[in-house]
Amino acid sequence: MEEIKRFGVSIESGLLEKFDRYISSNNYQNRSEALRDLIRKELVHNEWTKTGEMVAGAIVMVYDHHRHEVVGRLIKIQHDYNSIIISTQHIHLDHDNCLEIIVVKGRLDKIDELSSKLKSIKGVKHATLSKSTLGKNI
Amino acid sequence: MEEIKRFGVSIESGLLEKFDRYISSNNYQNRSEALRDLIRKELVHNEWTKTGEMVAGAIVMVYDHHRHEVVGRLIKIQHDYNSIIISTQHIHLDHDNCLEIIVVKGRLDKIDELSSKLKSIKGVKHATLSKSTLGKNI
Amino acid sequence: MEEIKRFGVSIESGLLEKFDRYISSNNYQNRSEALRDLIRKELVHNEWTKTGEMVAGAIVMVYDHHRHEVVGRLIKIQHDYNSIIISTQHIHLDHDNCLEIIVVKGRLDKIDELSSKLKSIKGVKHATLSKSTLGKNI
Amino acid sequence: MEEIKRFGVSIESGLLEKFDRYISSNNYQNRSEALRDLIRKELVHNEWTKTGEMVAGAIVMVYDHHRHEVVGRLIKIQHDYNSIIISTQHIHLDHDNCLEIIVVKGRLDKIDELSSKLKSIKGVKHATLSKSTLGKNI
Repeated sequence: MEEIKRFGVSIESGLLEKFDRYISSNNYQNRSEALRDLIRKELVHNEWTKTGEMVAGAIVMVYDHHRHEVVGRLIKIQHDYNSIIISTQHIHLDHDNCLEIIVVKGRLDKIDELSSKLKSIKGVKHATLSKSTLGKNI
Repeated sequence: MEEIKRFGVSIESGLLEKFDRYISSNNYQNRSEALRDLIRKELVHNEWTKTGEMVAGAIVMVYDHHRHEVVGRLIKIQHDYNSIIISTQHIHLDHDNCLEIIVVKGRLDKIDELSSKLKSIKGVKHATLSKSTLGKNI
Repeated sequence: MEEIKRFGVSIESGLLEKFDRYISSNNYQNRSEALRDLIRKELVHNEWTKTGEMVAGAIVMVYDHHRHEVVGRLIKIQHDYNSIIISTQHIHLDHDNCLEIIVVKGRLDKIDELSSKLKSIKGVKHATLSKSTLGKNI
Repeated sequence: MEEIKRFGVSIESGLLEKFDRYISSNNYQNRSEALRDLIRKELVHNEWTKTGEMVAGAIVMVYDHHRHEVVGRLIKIQHDYNSIIISTQHIHLDHDNCLEIIVVKGRLDKIDELSSKLKSIKGVKHATLSKSTLGKNI
C-alpha cells in the first residue's frame, strides 16, 4: 500500500465556496479526491505532449463496413502496429455502421501515427484518440 | 448504396498548396476524402453540444483495483446505466492498474452523467469520454 | 481583503512527487498557488457550458483587409453587438494580414453568436474565442 | 490578387445535406467559404504543434491588481519578452479585476514559455493562450 502524505492548502473563501459547490455537483466525496483528480488530469494531459513518452489510450472509430475494402485495410494496418495494440472491440451500431475501439499502449508518436493512418481510410467516418495513462505513480 | 453528389470548390492557390501538403502527410488519397473528414469532424463536434442528441462514444478509465470497493462501485453504477452501456472491455495494465473501456450509446446528457459518476469514484485515477457518433447520414 | 481559509489534503506520495515536479517546471512558488490555478481553470471551463452565464473573453481574428468589403462588414457586425463589446485592438501583421482582438463581456450565448458571425465573413481567415472570466469570487 | 483555383468534391448526399444545414446555421454564404474555414482551422491547429514554428496569438489574463506586486511582476516579465510582444490592452472589469490581453508574435516555444510564466504569478486568476496565425498563404 502506497504511503499517503498530507499537506495544507490556503485558498480564498469565495473560491473555496465555488469549489465546494463544484465538488457536490460532480459527486466527489471530499476535497482531497477532487483535487487529486484535477492534478492527475493535468499530469496526464502533459504526458501526451512528450513525443517519446509511454502512454495508454483508445482509438474510437466509426465506419461503414460496406465500403470497398475498408475492413481489409483496417485489419492490415492493425497488424502492422500489433506491438502497440492490446485488443480491439467491435460493436454493430446498425445495418451499415460499426463502432470499433482499439486499445493502445506504447510510445506516443507510434500511437499518433496509427491513429492518423486509420482515420484517413476511405469508409472511416470518424476517429478520435482517447488520451489516457499507464497509471504508474499517479 | 447512397447517392454521391459533386460540386465545385474555389480556393486560393497558396491555401490549396498547404492543404495538399496536409493531405499527403496525413495519408489521404485525395482532396474529397480529406474534406469529408473535416466536415464530419465538425458535425460530430456539434452533435455533442446538443443536450438531447443521441450519440455514441466510449468512456476510457484507469483505476487501481486494489482500492477498497472500487470494483464493486464501478459495477453498481454501470448496472444503473445499463440502458446506455453496450459493452465493457477490461485490460490489465500491470499488477495494480486496470484500463477499462465502456462503450456507450444514448442521450448525451445521460452519458455525461454516467461519465461524471465514474470519474468521481475513489480509486479511479483518470477518465475521459471519447465523443463519437452513431454514424447516420454522415 | 478576502478571508483566506486553510484545509488539509491527502495524497499518495508518488502522485505528490510528480505534482511537485510539475510545480517547479511551471514556475509556481508553492502547492497552494498551483492547486488554486487548477481549481480556477476547471471552474472557468464550467462557466462556459452554461448558456445564460455572464462571461468575459476575447475574439482573436486574422483577416485580409484587401478583401472586398471585409472591413465594412466587420464594423457593421461589431456595432450590432456593441453592448457586449468592450474594445477592439488592431495589429498590422504584414501588408495584407490584420490581427484584430475584440474584448467581450456579456451573456455567453450572445458572445457565441457574435463569434460565429465574424468567423463566417469572407476574408476572415481564422477566428478563435478565448474563454476567460469576470473574475468574481474566483 | 492571389490566383483562385477550382476543383470538384464528391460527397454522399446525406452528408451534404447535413453540411448545408451547418452552413446556413453558421451564417456562411456558400460551401466554398465554409470549407476554406475548416481547412484553415485544421492548418492553424497543426502549426501550433511544431516547436519552432512562427505563430501569432493572444494571451488573455484576468488578475486582481490589489494583490501584492502582481502588476510589477507582470510588467517585468513582459519586458523580458518584449521581442515577441506586440502590444498589451488593459480592461477594468470591476473594482478588483483586470482583463489584460497581450498580443504575441514569434516562435511558438517562446510564446508558451511567456504564457506559463504569466499564469504562475500569484494574483493571476486565469490565463489562456489564443492560438492564431500570421495569416501567410492561408
